[in-house]
Amino acid sequence: MEKATRQQLKKQNRDLVLKIFFETAQISRAEIARMTGLTRTTVSDIVADLVSEGLVNEVGIGVSTGGKSPILLSLVEDAHTIIGLDLAYNQFRGAVVDLRGQIRNVISLPVSDTTGSQAIEAALGILDQLVSSEKDSLIGIGVGTPGLINSEDGVVVTAVNLQWKSLPLGKILSERYKLPVIVLNDCQAAAMGEFKFGETLPASRNMIVVRAGHGIGAGVIIDGKIFQGDGGSAGEIGHVVMLKDGGQLCRCGKTGCLETLASVRAVVQSAQNRLENGETTCLKISDLPITVDRMVEAYQARDRMVVEIIDEAGKFLGGAIAILVSTLNIHHIILMGEMTRFGDRWLDVVYQTMMKSTLPHQGRDTHLHTGTLRDNDVILGASALLAGNYALLMRQPSP
Amino acid sequence: MEKATRQQLKKQNRDLVLKIFFETAQISRAEIARMTGLTRTTVSDIVADLVSEGLVNEVGIGVSTGGKSPILLSLVEDAHTIIGLDLAYNQFRGAVVDLRGQIRNVISLPVSDTTGSQAIEAALGILDQLVSSEKDSLIGIGVGTPGLINSEDGVVVTAVNLQWKSLPLGKILSERYKLPVIVLNDCQAAAMGEFKFGETLPASRNMIVVRAGHGIGAGVIIDGKIFQGDGGSAGEIGHVVMLKDGGQLCRCGKTGCLETLASVRAVVQSAQNRLENGETTCLKISDLPITVDRMVEAYQARDRMVVEIIDEAGKFLGGAIAILVSTLNIHHIILMGEMTRFGDRWLDVVYQTMMKSTLPHQGRDTHLHTGTLRDNDVILGASALLAGNYALLMRQPSP
Repeated sequence: MEKATRQQLKKQNRDLVLKIFFETAQISRAEIARMTGLTRTTVSDIVADLVSEGLVNEVGIGVSTGGKSPILLSLVEDAHTIIGLDLAYNQFRGAVVDLRGQIRNVISLPVSDTTGSQAIEAALGILDQLVSSEKDSLIGIGVGTPGLINSEDGVVVTAVNLQWKSLPLGKILSERYKLPVIVLNDCQAAAMGEFKFGETLPASRNMIVVRAGHGIGAGVIIDGKIFQGDGGSAGEIGHVVMLKDGGQLCRCGKTGCLETLASVRAVVQSAQNRLENGETTCLKISDLPITVDRMVEAYQARDRMVVEIIDEAGKFLGGAIAILVSTLNIHHIILMGEMTRFGDRWLDVVYQTMMKSTLPHQGRDTHLHTGTLRDNDVILGASALLAGNYALLMRQPSP
Repeated sequence: MEKATRQQLKKQNRDLVLKIFFETAQISRAEIARMTGLTRTTVSDIVADLVSEGLVNEVGIGVSTGGKSPILLSLVEDAHTIIGLDLAYNQFRGAVVDLRGQIRNVISLPVSDTTGSQAIEAALGILDQLVSSEKDSLIGIGVGTPGLINSEDGVVVTAVNLQWKSLPLGKILSERYKLPVIVLNDCQAAAMGEFKFGETLPASRNMIVVRAGHGIGAGVIIDGKIFQGDGGSAGEIGHVVMLKDGGQLCRCGKTGCLETLASVRAVVQSAQNRLENGETTCLKISDLPITVDRMVEAYQARDRMVVEIIDEAGKFLGGAIAILVSTLNIHHIILMGEMTRFGDRWLDVVYQTMMKSTLPHQGRDTHLHTGTLRDNDVILGASALLAGNYALLMRQPSP
């Protein structure tokens, strides 16, 4: 057996033991051995590691079943916190989260024109404050950011809005704070947040979260884990070409991408253009630049032009979701992001289009909801990954 | 810990031990215990089960490292065979396959107009012959069939070509032959076949197989397993709407589905229509009905009309594959089915369209090949599932 396989086995056994700690209040080493079929020695070695990492501690003495009374161990959940950081389009938002997803502290910062090294400074500013407030209990930092991320190496390959390219964000943060760091795509983080802490629980361990805001992207949960694909960017539906001919130029260089048709940016731009072209609408030239608030008002007031724009956007999003339903046949789909502010009518347009564009049995069994975590989805997801993805807890901070 | 979890652990340990048998020529119980970290008792219990199932046997005595000389065990691979059955559009094809994917015996039957109970009879005819020839070594039957399949219950929910609806095929076969049976979608089976036995090995444990023949479908392998989605029909790309307006009516009731644009059926139909409308082409009215052979010839001869039809079909398929690349970001994609007979030029059209319709980093890292197993993909995949999916070996035949 090769070395890689041995290490996999070691990790697998560790995960198994840690899982039992997450699921039980108190337990002895002997009981763990009995439950897992692992040897006492293997279990003791794993437990010793977990104790030395501060994740598990001895909490009492159990009842003897003949020999020496067993020592009971337990997960040290309250003593551990994680920082979740959401580097969203218009604001950076950081918070301290405990192992069960309770948020203790939130710092947010508007960043509409902050890019490059300024954006790094802004992120560090938030983290400095959060880290100093939580020094002793922190076990790691989880960062969700738009763009293409190499989570394995903690590198932001490209994040267009922030003008980051090949930025070793994970290394920068782990060196500065001496903590394990996870960096991942914000939609993927949001999906994990909804999966772990959202109100609507999927029947299976699969789920898709589609975020339609300034950009559009999805996070795919398969068997309870984020599915990133081979290149890290699974769920990148914003750049699926939905209009074969005559679509608008996208920031990616193609035309007709979903983002140019169904995002907040797209609908605001479309409203502005049509207003400036003199179309009849309750929006006024004095409203320029048009805000989402103003669009939502006009949509609720059934302004003909705005209804056309938003319903059209909903149809394109529904068509894209139909593609996800056809290819993945995952029954539980959550919609998030600023477009959800257009409410039930918009959601219904999305749903009806999805139904029309899938096979009957696929559409019928698909549940489409809006998410419940709102602003905290990315923060909770990024921190849940650090708490739940036991493998990543093994990463040691740089010396 | 709940009962379910205990059983999961038991299965996990069994899988681990069986995996070691698949990977090593000969091994002792003590060595397995050392490699897995499981107790000697746990290992001995598992090995006893495997021996009593005839999957493993004692083959010799190893060198002592101090105490008693260890007994060496090995997988009994030659003594076990599986029947793979491919219920394809125009022919049913069954074969006997050993645990390493060697095909021993093939029976095929043309079935172009065979549907309903006649189709069941045809399948049973093939199986009767194969079962009687291999009686003692058979450990199961794997069936790949077009349509929507509930693999868990072995039910063909719908198979339009065969006019099967809610057919308990798994039950029918397991009762008749007293063997474990797996029934699954043919594209999903083909994907497993290519993954296990194809020449081009993916770098990761993810792969997509797209079959473009009479119909179009895909099989998605994630982490070495077939991903069926929550409803069993993941990979159903044939009915993704690729033409928003003015597409042809599909047999599913929608218009503009990929199948109506890029399948063998679609290109043959298109050629016939255009020929009958008097378009200039090397095809002749006397060629009607047009065969795929004739289309391939005409394509190779660069017949303008046929080139237009096939390249257009290739573009739509490329667009659909771009969607798979964007949503799943799996780097290894295999093309199979009758459309691959149009060769490298068609493949290049598919590839170029895929590249144009994905983000640069996603397209660049995607490898698109044609499959190598040809007619045996479904048979090998369905049988590999029985051999490789150890959980299913535990299913007992009906008494």
